[in-house]
Order: sequence, then structure tokens, then C-alpha cells
Amino acid sequence: MTRVGVWLIGARGSVATTAVLGALAVRSGAAGRTGCVTERPEFAGARLPGIGDLVFGGHDVSETGLRESAERLAGAGVLPAHLPPALADGLDRTERGLRRGLDDVSGGVRRGDVDRLEADLREFSEREALERVVVVDLSSTEPRPGAYAEHTDADALEAALDTGTARIPASSAYAYAALRAGCAFVEFTPNTGPRLPALARLADRSGVPWAGSDGKTGETLVKSALAPMFAARALHVRSWSSVNLLGGGDGATLADPANAESKLASKARGLEHMLGHGPDGPLHIDYVPDLGDAKVAWDHVSFEGFLGARMSLQFTWSGYDSALAAPLVLDLARLAAHAHRQGRSGPLPELAFFFKDPVGTREHGLAEQWRALTSWCAAPAEEAE
Amino acid sequence: MTRVGVWLIGARGSVATTAVLGALAVRSGAAGRTGCVTERPEFAGARLPGIGDLVFGGHDVSETGLRESAERLAGAGVLPAHLPPALADGLDRTERGLRRGLDDVSGGVRRGDVDRLEADLREFSEREALERVVVVDLSSTEPRPGAYAEHTDADALEAALDTGTARIPASSAYAYAALRAGCAFVEFTPNTGPRLPALARLADRSGVPWAGSDGKTGETLVKSALAPMFAARALHVRSWSSVNLLGGGDGATLADPANAESKLASKARGLEHMLGHGPDGPLHIDYVPDLGDAKVAWDHVSFEGFLGARMSLQFTWSGYDSALAAPLVLDLARLAAHAHRQGRSGPLPELAFFFKDPVGTREHGLAEQWRALTSWCAAPAEEAE
Amino acid sequence: MTRVGVWLIGARGSVATTAVLGALAVRSGAAGRTGCVTERPEFAGARLPGIGDLVFGGHDVSETGLRESAERLAGAGVLPAHLPPALADGLDRTERGLRRGLDDVSGGVRRGDVDRLEADLREFSEREALERVVVVDLSSTEPRPGAYAEHTDADALEAALDTGTARIPASSAYAYAALRAGCAFVEFTPNTGPRLPALARLADRSGVPWAGSDGKTGETLVKSALAPMFAARALHVRSWSSVNLLGGGDGATLADPANAESKLASKARGLEHMLGHGPDGPLHIDYVPDLGDAKVAWDHVSFEGFLGARMSLQFTWSGYDSALAAPLVLDLARLAAHAHRQGRSGPLPELAFFFKDPVGTREHGLAEQWRALTSWCAAPAEEAE
Amino acid sequence: MTRVGVWLIGARGSVATTAVLGALAVRSGAAGRTGCVTERPEFAGARLPGIGDLVFGGHDVSETGLRESAERLAGAGVLPAHLPPALADGLDRTERGLRRGLDDVSGGVRRGDVDRLEADLREFSEREALERVVVVDLSSTEPRPGAYAEHTDADALEAALDTGTARIPASSAYAYAALRAGCAFVEFTPNTGPRLPALARLADRSGVPWAGSDGKTGETLVKSALAPMFAARALHVRSWSSVNLLGGGDGATLADPANAESKLASKARGLEHMLGHGPDGPLHIDYVPDLGDAKVAWDHVSFEGFLGARMSLQFTWSGYDSALAAPLVLDLARLAAHAHRQGRSGPLPELAFFFKDPVGTREHGLAEQWRALTSWCAAPAEEAE
Ligand SMILES: NC(=O)c1ccc[n+]([C@@H]2O[C@H](COP(=O)([O-])OP(=O)(O)OC[C@H]3O[C@@H](n4cnc5c(N)ncnc54)[C@H](O)[C@@H]3O)[C@@H](O)[C@H]2O)c1
Ligand SMILES: NC(=O)c1ccc[n+]([C@@H]2O[C@H](COP(=O)([O-])OP(=O)(O)OC[C@H]3O[C@@H](n4cnc5c(N)ncnc54)[C@H](O)[C@@H]3O)[C@@H](O)[C@H]2O)c1
Ligand SMILES: NC(=O)c1ccc[n+]([C@@H]2O[C@H](COP(=O)([O-])OP(=O)(O)OC[C@H]3O[C@@H](n4cnc5c(N)ncnc54)[C@H](O)[C@@H]3O)[C@@H](O)[C@H]2O)c1
Ligand SMILES: NC(=O)c1ccc[n+]([C@@H]2O[C@H](COP(=O)([O-])OP(=O)(O)OC[C@H]3O[C@@H](n4cnc5c(N)ncnc54)[C@H](O)[C@@H]3O)[C@@H](O)[C@H]2O)c1
Ligand code: NA
Ligand code: NA
Repeated sequence: MTRVGVWLIGARGSVATTAVLGALAVRSGAAGRTGCVTERPEFAGARLPGIGDLVFGGHDVSETGLRESAERLAGAGVLPAHLPPALADGLDRTERGLRRGLDDVSGGVRRGDVDRLEADLREFSEREALERVVVVDLSSTEPRPGAYAEHTDADALEAALDTGTARIPASSAYAYAALRAGCAFVEFTPNTGPRLPALARLADRSGVPWAGSDGKTGETLVKSALAPMFAARALHVRSWSSVNLLGGGDGATLADPANAESKLASKARGLEHMLGHGPDGPLHIDYVPDLGDAKVAWDHVSFEGFLGARMSLQFTWSGYDSALAAPLVLDLARLAAHAHRQGRSGPLPELAFFFKDPVGTREHGLAEQWRALTSWCAAPAEEAE
Repeated sequence: MTRVGVWLIGARGSVATTAVLGALAVRSGAAGRTGCVTERPEFAGARLPGIGDLVFGGHDVSETGLRESAERLAGAGVLPAHLPPALADGLDRTERGLRRGLDDVSGGVRRGDVDRLEADLREFSEREALERVVVVDLSSTEPRPGAYAEHTDADALEAALDTGTARIPASSAYAYAALRAGCAFVEFTPNTGPRLPALARLADRSGVPWAGSDGKTGETLVKSALAPMFAARALHVRSWSSVNLLGGGDGATLADPANAESKLASKARGLEHMLGHGPDGPLHIDYVPDLGDAKVAWDHVSFEGFLGARMSLQFTWSGYDSALAAPLVLDLARLAAHAHRQGRSGPLPELAFFFKDPVGTREHGLAEQWRALTSWCAAPAEEAE
Repeated sequence: MTRVGVWLIGARGSVATTAVLGALAVRSGAAGRTGCVTERPEFAGARLPGIGDLVFGGHDVSETGLRESAERLAGAGVLPAHLPPALADGLDRTERGLRRGLDDVSGGVRRGDVDRLEADLREFSEREALERVVVVDLSSTEPRPGAYAEHTDADALEAALDTGTARIPASSAYAYAALRAGCAFVEFTPNTGPRLPALARLADRSGVPWAGSDGKTGETLVKSALAPMFAARALHVRSWSSVNLLGGGDGATLADPANAESKLASKARGLEHMLGHGPDGPLHIDYVPDLGDAKVAWDHVSFEGFLGARMSLQFTWSGYDSALAAPLVLDLARLAAHAHRQGRSGPLPELAFFFKDPVGTREHGLAEQWRALTSWCAAPAEEAE
Repeated sequence: MTRVGVWLIGARGSVATTAVLGALAVRSGAAGRTGCVTERPEFAGARLPGIGDLVFGGHDVSETGLRESAERLAGAGVLPAHLPPALADGLDRTERGLRRGLDDVSGGVRRGDVDRLEADLREFSEREALERVVVVDLSSTEPRPGAYAEHTDADALEAALDTGTARIPASSAYAYAALRAGCAFVEFTPNTGPRLPALARLADRSGVPWAGSDGKTGETLVKSALAPMFAARALHVRSWSSVNLLGGGDGATLADPANAESKLASKARGLEHMLGHGPDGPLHIDYVPDLGDAKVAWDHVSFEGFLGARMSLQFTWSGYDSALAAPLVLDLARLAAHAHRQGRSGPLPELAFFFKDPVGTREHGLAEQWRALTSWCAAPAEEAE
């Protein structure tokens, strides 16, 4: 059996909609595979599940349907205007498989909540007769959570779920449900998700691999290509200032400093690792509604060369986040399924290439991450099943 | 014996002056090693000759002495103003070891010319009691040469030298003399130098390694960090437009389109290799005297992502070419001496990291080049002597 | 009578199509007036002909109809996708009024050619019952013409037309016909058009005003706002380097250096006037087909301040030339009709605000031009009719 | 009598030091007048006091002398290295004329404080036998003050001074003293200074003119040249995002949000006036110590053209604030003395050209301000004395 399920948390958001529509378009031949990393020749030998073999479902808390969301993105120039109508049937079919997500967790997550999410996953797998399911978190960025016993201690977490008082973010509730349902998990947002220490034992027992976190699509991607250049050339980076201007749903969420905090943290971590020291300079994320789904980032790097020469590099990145992120969602679903097939469990450092804040490794340099990824996929697969 | 000679062709030019002054400054503790690649921890095990063990000599055809040249560069802000006076003695000592270069080759190179150059190298080695000598070409960019029998056929070259009619560029005459004198050679310019097929047999027989060509210091360096990013992410680069504004001696030379031709060729070659296709877009090198020794480069990359999304990246690089190039000259001298010690002869593809147009390899990506370089230097040295 | 005719040379090109479609959209309420200078409050008192009162016709030598042209522009994102179908009737009506232009003038322009063009103008005016007609040249940039007697001497021109050997560019043939037909003329391209000295007497006799040349829409517009800033602040601009990347039909034409020559000349002239001296630095126009109808320009200004401090300003302009030019075409048609109504004849320096290479004035600074324009329009109109 | 005094508050800061050194250099012929607006031909007829006729004194609270301050600026590349030693005598002479400023006003300003400041001004004027004195505030940016009765009511202010409890910022204490001493005042910082309503009567009675506030030297200067361009072209600016990176003493002060507040306010005000509406977008001032006395600013403007076309302009400004500000200080001293000679009192809107937040006018466009300034200086002077 080769059909693989992809269950999207935040299934009606911009990234998710673009991923679903894109997979439909690729399958029907209406679009090409530009931006799909796993379509490169380096992955040909790995026998990954095909894009055409992916089946989509998901949770969301918004009422705006996939079609409407796709039309909005087409109107904003992110998607070609002809695709949403051409693929309306496929969108509607996916829409029917979506389920109500977990909305307000401020009162505490209950046993019944995670049971329901788990049941949704199991039902999806059976209904669609899937080989396996990968859950991908694409929901809105959450505020950084406080520190509670049920975050670090697995038993405390179980107890708190039983009493309906588990103070865990929704993303971690989804991760809990996924692990229980035996589904691989991809944390594409800066949310906590499966990074809660209390979930480690569960991932282990369930034999479930997971990857994360925070998809590396724009300014941080460029940083991870440039910072190793300065390091290898023994040039001393004195300051690195970054500004990100973005509109769109993600921008609106990040306009709240509480939500931006976790994003800023995952963006900042890498530079210090790549350069060997933390340079001066601000890191801004600004909500500029006018920009809509476009994102403009400016970075200014001031560096010192031989005999104290002062030089600079600056770049402006102008991209569509959803168009950058969506193919990576497909890549990650394929690769996580591949790891699961191979019997891997726990964090997947080989997928660091895709993330701003990679788990299980301190390597932030893009080229080294690429090498780790392609080496893993080139290795003869020892399938567990 | 551990003192290693570095013989600079174009010894009074900006790069050469900065390299000599810089080595003196590092040795005396007046300056640090920022920008010196071979001072990174990755090279600690390779037992390269120390910067303090390098002894400098060279050829030039200009009358402006090293001190004057250093003062000019300090006045332009490339070097700290206090260094040239503080190191005047060392500069004068080096100046006394410089010899008159080969000036006008338009009438044909003669046996006597190359004999004289070879004798200068042998005299340097003996006078200074050197373990070995590395010749580094830092002379002005030459016009791209025509095609002649003596370029491809070793015997034809010898015969033409005998009759004083060898139509080879000065850089190749220097390379010939170096090979005869048993000196490793580094072609840091886009000049032909040792790339003449007629010189291959000689390099082989003399057991002399060589590296080249055209130091990768500015806009091309950034390109070689960024282009692999687009490729690995399966993003389709549609156009890549480049503008280089530079004053200084090098800029004045390149203002002549005949001279710029070889530079443009070495800059362009890499992009196609890294991307797998040659994108649209101009590549300009403009002489802007006002900029002096500063160089400003602007690149605009237009690329396509998933579902045809159109995005762009642009960067502005603002650097001092001499400050960027000089430490690489020291690196290359140390590494070429190291290869020579190891008994290597012919082209050194492991040094591609340093060049716009690397010999013996088609790899232009910076990170892959870095890996090749550091792997080679990490390998247990099997010294030939 | 208030309907004013606008006869476009190059009526099926990008700028012309956008102007026609835009006027239809404004009239029908389907679009706003953003970018229309003459809709600003400063012009309210001048009683210009309304946008809704403009009637379009024109010459072209291409077979691609207005509708097809509009659809292509919508596909490229220059026009909203919904407009061409919504306004198809209006486009078709205009299309029916277009006439075959003057194609190949390499054999010499004949009396019959200009007579036919004049007849087309007269027929348009009568058919549509127009108060007056303004001819606007929006045709492809021509190569810079040689120098001939018939360019400077009105009688020589008449004689050459009689013998069918007038070596004048097509744009000047159109201008000749317009002046004969009593139509005001706007030279929106860098073409020679009415600037031929041999046409001055004719303009005078016909009592016809004309404006030009070369619409100032992008990088030159920004230049004309910034250069006066440096001058007023007594900052010394040392170099000003400009790069223009453009695809589209205009880009393809300018890819031929012969055609680019006149454009480069009109772009360069202003800087020297505004700064009081001509700074260093290249001025490139590059054809980058990938960019389609988008234009990207980068300017780098190096300047000196008090006590020799070296500073820089750089900007990147990213625009759609047709969207920038089209509303100015409407503005110029209204303003030229206004001048004609006022009894003006010959060059109109008051319209310098719109042009890279303004006639009848050496003022290139945008703010001064704006003041001249608005003062003229604020003055109580002394209508000639 | 023609010697005019310039009394600098913050006399040992970067701007003040550069102004003093620059005036000495101009007088001695060691430097030119680049950056001095009032040296342009437009001012030739106004018979302003000459740069060589300015005599400097001032208040500061720092112990770092003018020579040390000048050497630091030379080391940072802001001033030529040869100037401070060459002009050491002049610096020392000025240094001897400096007086201790008003340090900590947190306990309330006392009558004795302002009396002492006034006495310093009178002593300066007599000692140097000056025609008149202009006081220029170049001190550190203060936190934005609270609202108190003594700010708006002149009598309340006098009473509070008498009881030693006047809650006014130091800048306003300096302004009070200047008005009492009959000195014209220039508020070059965003500080409150003479803008306190309670000071208006005093300025009037003393017949003293004043100008301000907050010198327009960098990013805001460019804004004031570009924003009117968008407005005149009827282009709709949707967002304007600004980032200012600066090190130096001013940067360190502004790193404290309390101090930055007044600066941000004066920077923001203008855009809305020039565009007719307030666009989206952040305005950041970031302290990046690494940049030292250099300032780098990036602005991104997203605008809409005809038929909704979306376009952008971005610029990067890289300047030395002190080199930009210092000649304006000389200009303002000359112009304020000129106004005083003419018998002007109260705010001088004609000097808006120099300020981010001009008093007495809402005109922020650079070109209009230039016209107002030059018209005033071209007018036949009716001197009051
Ligand atoms: N686009 C990129 O380049 C990129 C890169 C890295 C990370 N991300 C992250 O991906 C996420 C999605 O981005 P987007 O642009 O699609 O945002 P979006 O706002 O368009 O979509 C988020 C979706 O999540 C849904 N949602 C919110 N709370 C939920 C909950 N508790 N349960 C289920 N669904 C919930 C929302 O209703 C919405 O449909 C964000 O967290 C973003 O930070 C995006
Ligand atoms: N600086 C960089 O970043 C960089 C990078 C790659 C390559 N390069 C190349 O390095 C070379 C040197 O650059 P530079 O900035 O020092 O230039 P430069 O003009 O300052 O120096 C060139 C020197 O070569 C000398 N010379 C000319 N012809 C000679 C001959 N026949 N024999 C001996 N000497 C001769 C000149 O007299 C001069 O002193 C150039 O070819 C340049 O293209 C420089
Ligand atoms: N778009 C701008 O911002 C801008 C600014 C200044 C000047 N211009 C000038 O405006 C002109 C039009 O630009 P465009 O982008 O619309 O170009 P385009 O190539 O799309 O259109 C030019 C049109 O002129 C027609 N043409 C060519 N030769 C002709 C002839 N002899 N008689 C009649 N028609 C002829 C062509 O068939 C074509 O339809 C160009 O000359 C351009 O340089 C444009
Ligand atoms: N440089 C520019 O382009 C520019 C433009 C506009 C405004 N400004 C303003 O000019 C001022 C000076 O800038 P700078 O770069 O010279 O700063 P700086 O920090 O180098 O100098 C400020 C000086 O003011 C002194 N000072 C502080 N409090 C004082 C007090 N109560 N009385 C007297 N002196 C006092 C300090 O000791 C210091 O010497 C700042 O407020 C800045 O915001 C500068
Ligand atoms: Na992103
Ligand atoms: Na400033």
C-alpha cells in the first residue's frame, strides 16, 4: 500500500492551502515541481512516496473554507488565478475531510480533547486506507508558554490531562495525539509541539519520528547560506541587522509581541552557531498589512577584514512565504514518512536543512545541512516494515 | 629548514603591497589574522609554514616603491595609517629584494627573458636560504591572448623561445621560469599564466604544483555562497544581473574592454555550473575612479518558486579588494608550499575555494570547495621530502 | 464642443494599450485615478478636458490587436485580470478606429506618406466630431538619425518629400502630418519627432503647441527628485552609477545599441544640469527578458560632505513602466489640448515635469518643474477661442 | 563690528567638535566648504557673517576635551587624521572658553542656574567683543518631558524658578538664559528648548529670533526629497518603512526608548504632511555600537500606481551624521544672526529647510523649504540696526 496521509494542523491557512492546491496541481499536471527539494536527482534513489500519493486532511478552527482561502491567495498574486477554479473539486473533497481543531486551551487541555484529536487521525487513516499518516503543524504561531511540571514530566502530563488541567499549548496537544495515533510529526511553526520533554518517552514508545522546527524559507535561509561564507573566510562579522516586513495572517499574528517572541528566538539562535559569536544588531519582525502575502526582508552585515578593513554586505529578499513554504511541506511529509518506514523514532536531525531551529543538531549552515540530508537519502534504505 | 619564499609578480601593486605589509604586521604583532583562512582551527593539524616564516621578493615593472604604495593605500583608508611608518624598515628590506619584471612582450618572448626571470628566482632562494619558493602572480590583468602553436605544443614553445618570437603573455613567461626554477605557482589573476597546455609537461617533469585562477574575493564569492542555495531549494533562477563598480589600479586596467574580457569570462563561468543552467542578465565591470580602492557590487536575482511565484533577491557588496585578497595570498602561498612538500605536481583542485575559475574541477559552490579544502588539509600529510 | 481626440502613434503597444484601457476604466468607474497628475487639486481651476471626454484613435504597424495586447498585460500582472474582458467592447470600438502606420522609412519618406497620415487625422476628427486632436507618439524607440539638410531646412524638407527621398525618421513624419492637420503633438519617446528644426516654422504657422520628450517615469524621475537635494545641501556628488534592467517590448528595442543611444542621451543630460557638473559613473540599460513588463533600476551615488567625509546613497526602483506612463499620457493629452485652446504654439516648457529631456528649458529638477506646471495651470486661462 | 559668537550647548560632542574644527579648517584654508549651504551662490547677496568671523564658546557637562574628541573622530574616519594636530592651537583656545553646563535638573531648575548660564553668555560676548551671539543646542537628546504648569504659563515659570522647583528640561533652561541674554537660539536637537509656550513672551520681549528643531541630515532629508515626488505624481504610498542603524554617542543616547521618543516623533510628523495621509510601516532607530559614527538607514516604500499596479522604491543611506550636521550648524548660526540683525523675533519658519520638525510652518517638502529659504535671503535686507 502506498498512499500516505498528510494531516495539516491549520489546514485552511495560507501555507496549508498552497500545499494542498499545489499537490493537486502537480498531480493533475497543471503545475511543475519548482521549489520541491525532494524532486531533485539526489533523492531519486530513496523511493520516497510520490507527491501524487499524498492524501490530505487536517484540523482548523477557522470557518473560511479551502476554496475561499485559495481564491484569496490567487487574488493576492500568490497563486495563479486559473488554478483554484480548475482544481475546485479536489479542494472540496479535501475540505470535506477536515475536522474541527482544538480552539481555546486557556482553561487547560483535557483527556477528552486529545482523545478526540487522536480519533480524528485514526478515522482519517482508515477511511482513506493509508499506509501511514504524517501530521504537519501549520497553525498560527502561539505565544511562548510558561514553565509547568506537566511540560517536563510525562506522568505529570498524564495526570493533568486526566483532571482536565494540562497547561500545554494546543500544538503540544496535537503532537500528543499524533504520537498516540502512531503518526510521524513535523513541527513547521515555532510552536512548542513535540519539543515538550514530557513527550519524549511517548515518541520513543510509539516508535514515531518527528522533525522541526520553524520552516526556514526566507531571510533566515539566506543567512544560513551567507554566514558560513564569512566564517570560512575568517572575516569577522561585527554586526548583523535584520528587518522583516510582512502582512498576511502570519504577519497579523506576529504583530502581537507575545507571539513574535518564539519566532524571534528561533531566528536568532542560528547566527551565533554559524559565526562562533553573537554579533551586534537588531532583529525586527514588523507587521505591514499593505504588503499582504509578500514579505520583504533587509539584512545589513558589517564585517572586518585583514588589517581592520571595514566592509559591508546588505541584501533585500522579496518573496511569497506561502509559495516558499508549501513545497517544503510536501518534502517534509515525504521525508518523515520515509524515516518512519525506516523505523526511525524521535527527533530527525537530518532534516535540519528545512528549519530555522533544527532539533537534534547545532548545525545551522545550509550547505552542511544539505550534505547531511542528501547523505541520509542516498544511504541504502533499511526499511523496518 | 623552514623559511619559505613568496615571490610576487606585480610586487608593488595594491594586493601585493597589502600582503607584504600585512605579513610584516602579523609577524610583529601589530595586526591580527582576520581574513586569513589558514589560521582557522581546521588547518591546525596540517603544519603549514607560519606567516612569520614567509620571506618576500618579486618582480614589477612600476617604479613606485613599496613604501609609497603602502602610504597611498593608507591614505585611501585601505590600511591603517600607523602601519606603513611603523613597518618602514621591513618594507624597505623587501623593496631591495625586488627585481625588474618582464615589460613589453609584444615583440615576442626570448630565451634570454625567461632565463633571466629564472635566475632571479634561484638567486632569491639562495640568498635567503629558503626551503622552497612559491611564485604568486598579482600583476595587472592582461588582454586575452590569441591562439598560437606555441601555446599548445611544448616543443613549438621551446623553439619559439630560441628564436625570440614566442607569442605568449608575460604571465606565461613568468610561469615558465617558475616551473624551470622548481617553484610552485599561484595564478591569482585571470591571466593565462601556467594554464598554457604547452606548460603541462614542464610542470610534470619539474614536479611542481600550481593553483589558480583569479582570486574569488567579492561579488563572485557571494554568488558562490548563494547560487547553491537556490539550486538545493529547487528554486528556478530566471535572471542574475551583476554590476561591479571599482576604481583603483585594477579598475583602470579593466576599463579597457580587451583586459576585462578574461575577467568577465572567469566571473561568468561559475553560475552556470552551480545552477545547472545559464540565466538571463548582464555582467558589468565599470571603472569609477571616484571609488578609489573601494569596490561596490550590486546583484539582482529574479527567481521562480512553487506554482510560478515570482520573487527576487538583491545584494550590495561594499569591500576593499586588496584587504580581501591579501590574506588569501598568504593562505595560498602556505598551501602551495604544503602541496609541494607533499610531492604534488600539476593543478591543485583542492584550492578551488580561493578562485573564480578553479583549475582541475568544475565545482564552484563555496561550501563544497570548503569541504574539499579542509578534507585535504585534515588528511595525514605524506611528505615527499 | 468638448470631446477631445487622442491619436496614439504605436497605439497597440504597452503604454498605449494601458492608457486606452485605463481611460475606459476610469470613465466606467471600474478604476480610480491614482497616478493621474491632472486629477490633483492644483489643476481643478484649469478646466481641462475630462478623462471621460477623451476619444482614442491611432496608428500602429503591428497586427496584435488592442484586446490581445491588453490580455497579455493582464497576464503579466500589469493590469488587473478582470479589466480587459469587462471593457472588451470599448477596446474593440477603439481598435476599429486604428489605422495602418508608416512602416519602413529606410527608402525615404514620400509626400504621399505624410498626406495619408494627415488624412487619417482629419478623418478621425470629423468622424468623431472632436473639438481638437492631440497626437501622442508612443511608438518604439528609433535609432538616432544621421544629419541631413532636410532636418534643418524647411524648404529642403518640402523638396525631399516631393521627390520621395526625405531621410527623416518615422516619428518626424508623424509630427509633420500632425502639424499640417493642426493637431498638438506630444513626443513621449526619445524619438526625434517634432524636434527637427525644419519643423519649427510649420508649428508656428499652424499655431500648434508641442511637448516632449521622453516620458520621465522611473529611475530618471527619482534622480530628478534626489539630485537637487544634493545640490541644495552643497554636497559634492562624485559618482552616480545607474543600471536599468527591463524586459518587455521597450526592452527588446533598447537591446539594440543603436536604439538605446537616444534613450541614454536623454537620461544623461539632466544630471549635469541639476548638479552643476557631470559626475563619474556608468549608465546602463539592459534587456532582461525574464523581467517582462517589470523594470528594476539601481542607482549608486557616492558623495562627499564637510571635511571630505565620503558617504553614499543607493536606491532600487521596481516599477511597471506602462502603469507609470499611461496616466501621464492622459495628463499630457489634457494639458496639450489646454495649451492649444489657450492659443499657444511651439514648445511647451511648462510640461518639463513629465519629461527626461524637456524642450524649451534647462530645468530638470522635479520640484521646480512642478512649480512651473502648477503655476501655469493656476493662472487665469486666456482662451484663444 | 562683525565678529559673531556661536555658543554651543554640548560643545564637546561629535557635532559640536566637527563644527568648531571645521570652521577653524575653513578659516585657515585647510579645508573647503563642501556641505555649507550658505556658501552657495543663492546666499551671496545676503551679506551673512563669514565663517571666518564666527567665534566659538559653549557649555558641556563632559570632561573629554575638544582635542580628545577631535582625535577620536579622526580615528573613526569622520575627520581627516591630519586636521586635529594641525589645528590644535585653535581647539585649545576654544576649549579655554567653554564653561560647565547644567547637569542634573531632576531636582528642579533654580533661579541661580539660569542666572549663571546667562552670565556665561554675557561674559563671552564681552570678552570676545562680539556683535551678537547665537546659542545652538547640540546636547544629548533628552527624554520627552511631562506636562507642568510652568511649561505653558510664563508667570508660573518665573515663580518656579524662584523656588528652585522648575520642572523644565535643561534645554529649556539654556533657552531661557539665551533669551534673557538677548541671544538668538537654534534648537538643533529634538529637545524642547525654546518650544515651551511659557518662553514665547520672553522671546518677544527680548526681540530674539529662534529656529528649530532637530537637524535634518540623513534619512529624513531623503524622505523630504522623495515624498513630494510621490505626491506630485499622484502615486499612492501604501507603506513606508524606515530603519536607522547608528552607533556613536547619539546612538547610545537613543538606545534608551525614553530618549528615542522625541526623536521618533519629529521624524514621523513630516511624512503625513507631505503625503496627505499616514502610510503603514515601522520607524526604527537602533543602536549598533559597531557602526561607530557611521549611520546606515534603509527605507522601503511600497506604492500603488494607475489601475492598482504595485511597485516599490527602497534606498540605503550611508553617512556620517557629524559631517552632515556640522556645516549646517555654521549655516544656522549665520542665518540666525542675519535674522537677528534684521530685527526678527520668535520662530523662523524660513529655516525649515534645516529641520525634521520645523517651527512655524507645516511645510516638510525639501524643495519648497529651499524656495522659502532662498527667497528670504534674496530679499533686500532691511536691517534693524
Ligand atoms: N510561510 C512561511 O514561510 C513559514 C515559515 C516558517 C513557519 N511558518 C509558520 O507556519 C504557520 C502558518 O503560516 P500561515 O502563513 O499559513 O498562517 P495563516 O495565519 O494563514 O494560517 C494559520 C492557520 O492556523 C489556524 N489555526 C489557528 N489556531 C489553530 C488551532 N488551535 N488549531 C488548528 N488550527 C489553528 C488558523 O485558523 C489558520 O487557518 C505559522 O505559524 C507560521 O509562523 C510559515
Ligand atoms: N584584489 C582582488 O580582490 C583581486 C581578486 C582577483 C584577482 N585580482 C587580480 O590581482 C591583480 C592585481 O590587482 P591589484 O589591485 O593589486 O592591481 P594593481 O594595478 O594595483 O597592481 C598590479 C601590479 O602589476 C604590475 N605589473 C603590470 N604588468 C607587469 C608585468 N608584466 N610584470 C610585473 N609586474 C607587472 C603593475 O606595475 C602593478 O604594480 C589584478 O590582475 C587583479 O585582477 C585581484
Ligand atoms: N513606459 C515608459 O515608462 C516609457 C517612458 C518613456 C518613454 N517611453 C517610450 O514609449 C514608447 C512605447 O513604449 P512601450 O513600452 O509601449 O513599447 P512597445 O514596444 O510595447 O510599443 C511600441 C509600439 O509602437 C509600434 N510601432 C513601432 N514602429 C512604429 C511605427 N513606425 N509606426 C507606428 N507604430 C509603430 C509597435 O508596433 C508597438 O505596438 C517607447 O519608445 C518607450 O521608449 C516609455
Ligand atoms: N548628527 C546629526 O546628524 C544630528 C541631526 C539632528 C540632531 N542631532 C542631535 O544633535 C545632538 C548632538 O549629537 P552628537 O552626535 O554630537 O551627540 P554626542 O553624544 O556626541 O554629544 C552630545 C554632547 O552633549 C553633552 N551634554 C549632555 N547633556 C548636556 C547638558 N545638560 N548640558 C550641556 N551639555 C550636555 C554631552 O556631554 C556631549 O558632549 C543630539 O541631540 C542629536 O540627536 C544630530
Ligand atoms: Na519565511
Ligand atoms: Na541624521
